Amino acid sequence: MVKVISIALISLATAISAVTALDPVGQFKRAAACPTLGCVFPPDRSEFLAGSRFDVRVEVHAENNDKVNNKYSLTIEKLSGNGKHGKRGAIEFSKFSHIKPNGQESWDFTYFKDASAYWKSQDGDKNAVTPVHVASTAWRRVQIREPGTYKVTLKYNNGKKTEAIWTVNPVSKRKAKNVILFIGDGMTTAMITAARLISKPHISGKYQKHMHMDQFPVLGHIMTHSLDSLITDSANSASAYNTGHKSAAGALGVYPDTSASPFDDPKQELLAELMRRRSKKNGGAGGVGIVTTAEVQDATPAAVYAHTRDRDEKATIVDQMIHGPNPVVADVILGGGGKYFHSKQGGKSLNGTDYYNVYAKERGYKVVNDRDSLLKYKGKDPLLGIFHSGNMDVWLDRNVYKKNLDNAGSDPTGNGKAALNQPGLEEMAIKGLEVLDKRHRKEGWFMMVEAASVDKMMHPMDYDRALADLLEMDKTIGGTKEWLKRHKLDKDTLILVTADHAHSFDVYGSVDTQYFNSFSDSEELEKKNSVGTYENSGWPSYVDADGDGFPDKWDVRYTLAAGTAGFPSHREDFQVSINGTRVPAVAKTTSHHHYKVYEPSPNDDPHGILKPGTLGGTESVGVHSLQDVPIFASGPGSDLFAGIQDNTEIFHKISEVLGLGEQA
Amino acid sequence: MVKVISIALISLATAISAVTALDPVGQFKRAAACPTLGCVFPPDRSEFLAGSRFDVRVEVHAENNDKVNNKYSLTIEKLSGNGKHGKRGAIEFSKFSHIKPNGQESWDFTYFKDASAYWKSQDGDKNAVTPVHVASTAWRRVQIREPGTYKVTLKYNNGKKTEAIWTVNPVSKRKAKNVILFIGDGMTTAMITAARLISKPHISGKYQKHMHMDQFPVLGHIMTHSLDSLITDSANSASAYNTGHKSAAGALGVYPDTSASPFDDPKQELLAELMRRRSKKNGGAGGVGIVTTAEVQDATPAAVYAHTRDRDEKATIVDQMIHGPNPVVADVILGGGGKYFHSKQGGKSLNGTDYYNVYAKERGYKVVNDRDSLLKYKGKDPLLGIFHSGNMDVWLDRNVYKKNLDNAGSDPTGNGKAALNQPGLEEMAIKGLEVLDKRHRKEGWFMMVEAASVDKMMHPMDYDRALADLLEMDKTIGGTKEWLKRHKLDKDTLILVTADHAHSFDVYGSVDTQYFNSFSDSEELEKKNSVGTYENSGWPSYVDADGDGFPDKWDVRYTLAAGTAGFPSHREDFQVSINGTRVPAVAKTTSHHHYKVYEPSPNDDPHGILKPGTLGGTESVGVHSLQDVPIFASGPGSDLFAGIQDNTEIFHKISEVLGLGEQA
Repeated sequence: MVKVISIALISLATAISAVTALDPVGQFKRAAACPTLGCVFPPDRSEFLAGSRFDVRVEVHAENNDKVNNKYSLTIEKLSGNGKHGKRGAIEFSKFSHIKPNGQESWDFTYFKDASAYWKSQDGDKNAVTPVHVASTAWRRVQIREPGTYKVTLKYNNGKKTEAIWTVNPVSKRKAKNVILFIGDGMTTAMITAARLISKPHISGKYQKHMHMDQFPVLGHIMTHSLDSLITDSANSASAYNTGHKSAAGALGVYPDTSASPFDDPKQELLAELMRRRSKKNGGAGGVGIVTTAEVQDATPAAVYAHTRDRDEKATIVDQMIHGPNPVVADVILGGGGKYFHSKQGGKSLNGTDYYNVYAKERGYKVVNDRDSLLKYKGKDPLLGIFHSGNMDVWLDRNVYKKNLDNAGSDPTGNGKAALNQPGLEEMAIKGLEVLDKRHRKEGWFMMVEAASVDKMMHPMDYDRALADLLEMDKTIGGTKEWLKRHKLDKDTLILVTADHAHSFDVYGSVDTQYFNSFSDSEELEKKNSVGTYENSGWPSYVDADGDGFPDKWDVRYTLAAGTAGFPSHREDFQVSINGTRVPAVAKTTSHHHYKVYEPSPNDDPHGILKPGTLGGTESVGVHSLQDVPIFASGPGSDLFAGIQDNTEIFHKISEVLGLGEQA
Repeated sequence: MVKVISIALISLATAISAVTALDPVGQFKRAAACPTLGCVFPPDRSEFLAGSRFDVRVEVHAENNDKVNNKYSLTIEKLSGNGKHGKRGAIEFSKFSHIKPNGQESWDFTYFKDASAYWKSQDGDKNAVTPVHVASTAWRRVQIREPGTYKVTLKYNNGKKTEAIWTVNPVSKRKAKNVILFIGDGMTTAMITAARLISKPHISGKYQKHMHMDQFPVLGHIMTHSLDSLITDSANSASAYNTGHKSAAGALGVYPDTSASPFDDPKQELLAELMRRRSKKNGGAGGVGIVTTAEVQDATPAAVYAHTRDRDEKATIVDQMIHGPNPVVADVILGGGGKYFHSKQGGKSLNGTDYYNVYAKERGYKVVNDRDSLLKYKGKDPLLGIFHSGNMDVWLDRNVYKKNLDNAGSDPTGNGKAALNQPGLEEMAIKGLEVLDKRHRKEGWFMMVEAASVDKMMHPMDYDRALADLLEMDKTIGGTKEWLKRHKLDKDTLILVTADHAHSFDVYGSVDTQYFNSFSDSEELEKKNSVGTYENSGWPSYVDADGDGFPDKWDVRYTLAAGTAGFPSHREDFQVSINGTRVPAVAKTTSHHHYKVYEPSPNDDPHGILKPGTLGGTESVGVHSLQDVPIFASGPGSDLFAGIQDNTEIFHKISEVLGLGEQA
């Protein structure tokens, strides 16, 4: 349940309402969380774990021909309980933090005022942008150990003020030894409902078996808005889980400043970093595990250990894991993304370095590159397992349509071959548990396990592949619970299952594909009549007779009438894509615009019904959506996750469960 | 959390798996929950509240030219704990129940084998149907007071068997005096997220105020599948909440048999009926309140007090409230639906009877027909308040676009005038509380409050109207909590907030409507470019500066890019419909089919982008969807509703909270 704002904070909010500002209206903005010309990062309403480290940056902006006034000051004041002035009053920030900034920086950047300016620019109009000139100062590795409410004030432009209210949360007692955070990337309640429907037997409309997550005692919802927009991407959402701070699209472990460099943005300390330096008193330095079916440099796993404004800096992200600043050096790293580790065929590693070798030599990692080697490993060294050059193949291709795996060059070592020997998510997660248990049974550990391709397959509306990967995650949850029980860790381990954002997927009936396929492409009305709704939705044909948790057959007669709200122009035949992941739209070869415009791919569902897009013409796949995502919790501390909560609260709750804070 | 099936039940399931059958695959079916030619209602896996009354019907079917074999028998056996035979063995059902059936009935009906047969029939082919001949027997008002698992066996066709496992749940102690069940009809998590976004202030992406339901401590999800299909309608879903039994589309308080009569189907006892006859020991006969913005005969309110196979039998439903069988005679009935109470202008009452008069004379109801009379009423008599001839007008028209109310004939009394003096949902709910408190403070009460037009406005994709009515319900929840506190009932009252089914609504970005409107109808690509996604979704323009819980202005520049997955062909301009509810599609005047085919209405969003439908051509509006719906719980007994549950469990949990069962 959401925190009810205390009386003190309400009067405080009233007291400062003249200065503080609600989020500004509109699609385009000069800078995230900065409605005025003076910006403070962390911005208004930031919350901190006591004792965590963070950078502070202020920026003063001037637009067009205006000149930047580079005289500004930053103060901080700890407020009293009722929101009034504190005893010490406002203190110069450098004095308060005992941190000296590196001196004033300056730069220019541009932005778009609105959609009209943006699309003019996309069509080649160089005057459509608005230039901005910036003066800025940064304080690095600030730490506040005293819980309470602080008012931070930037004074600029001869009397203008930007205020930010910061809250430092008090620390409470450690509640669990271990935390496992399962993330079904892009997973919504509607997808769970659909995955259950195609995999679990039912009689008289009642399930006779349930998903593993259905059996969790605690359920919550998470609000996923980003710092500066109603819809988030995976980077800033995963970042919220790992830092307790919202950010902007593409940002990992930093607030987005306006400078060009993707590495100078103000950082927030990560859950994994805090775990690595936890005091003896609170349990000591604990273990960290990262398991994903995506590239290990992809947004969700990278949010566990990286700091950058740009999630696409994947080569540097590989380096950050072991070289930092403040490197996490996770005990377990399993997933795809081989091409950023080497410089052989298809390799893109930083400076051409062989990072497999560097991880092994410098940090003692055991490196494995296929399923057999993974399963064989019984050692105590940290484990780096990379099984694909890019994102790992999805369950449906790994297990049913195996010929789609035969993609030369997907081998993670750069030998030019196909990666035909990839482990499944459950095998990776269990191996992760084994290594963490060996290395940190005493101190405990934090492990993030991501079913990444729920999202990656929802984007091209490849629902079968997305739901199969959701089912694979659910099976992994079941296997994990069993493993924990067998190793007597179930009472010590909090398990969380959630998503980072939504897609607008839902099912609105069933489709008789035999009837659908009996008509020619011109008979669209008749094809659509194969959709059954309400009582005529009946039941689809998926059956899991062999009890492995997945439908035995995917190309069945009665399928789901499924769709989304935000999609590019494409065709839809409601049938599994047997020859590989869907590519619903392709760029038009001729257009009177300078930018690419997408149209239905002639090779995707060619006999499907036509669905003209509901997005801007430059979108080639479906997009994320607004709805709150579910979180299922089981184990010690699970009660904290009941009801509605902001995505930043997940960090604070996990920190509380693991005892990561350090209070003055 | 879902009930984990006990070991005994699992071995039981294994023991009987050879006979019992999973739900059959396909869109069309001969009968609901009857995969074979022998049907038992209540069907396999039915659960009962100990001591509740229910009808039993068996049917034996023969298709086409086959003859019905009218020799069949029904037995029941109480199983031992491990699923094996019980002490007494199988007993003839009449002997077990002490009920004599009324003798064998017979009838014929027809159904469609599949979509091909159905659409041939729709196009005039009279041979497309499959005839079925039926022999049937019914036992009325059966009661089982002894908890346990029962096996019911229909033997028919010389050796064929249909088995049904029934479970009678044990009774536990009453946990609360009062229960309020708020139903946002068709309300999903995505709609709550969107309603919060347009009404609550946020800073740096964090809400500074929340919805009332956001502040409930307990959250659950409800699986809404119907007895015979993956998608439910409001009747059989509301019926599940009121009886603990799933049913089929259109059915209220009954299992759907195949006979023509809408009134002879096997009944299940209602929550309100049980409340009315609760024993002294458990608190005595309690109060019942029904508040809705729909017609009071509409599916969700009627499910509280009516029994019929056909929710459209609205005139009879009015009669059932006071004449039964087993009439509920609710203490409070507030909503629309006046035309079924009278025979004046537009009147459709049963046999032309003046039911306002009958309710007043026979049952002592105070009858009110406008807001002023409602607010003025301070009496102790039962209250019937009917404020519109049909469904009440929605919040947006009652409060913002008031000229849309001026609809001659909407007055509930049949005087031909417009109903311009309608109360809001909160006013009705608070009046309901007052009357129930006066009449049943000692015994306690059950009140159902429905925001009906969330669903009714989602169907035509009139999202503004739907979200406004959702916000009105949330405000009503806040008002209710305050009222309960003021009257010292908050500790005694369980509040539930849920929905009966979903719509596939979600938001995938924002729309710059100024940019959208700057292009001509032929510039569809440019119009679509006004949709901002991810970081460019930014924030919409809705602001609630006056703090009334609703946006101050609805025709704003930056709106939500919202849509659904299952929709008829229509146009979309992403802007509020100022001149009344949307009518997205209209029937084509020419078609080569015998059935009506819908196309975009030329009057609805005429300058919108074209969205060809994703449904069968006969659908004129959007349809219900699959996803689990949320349930928020607060107060005594709220813990029961955490996690995932079937819709039938809601009945059993409310019954447990109110102490409605009676165990042998």
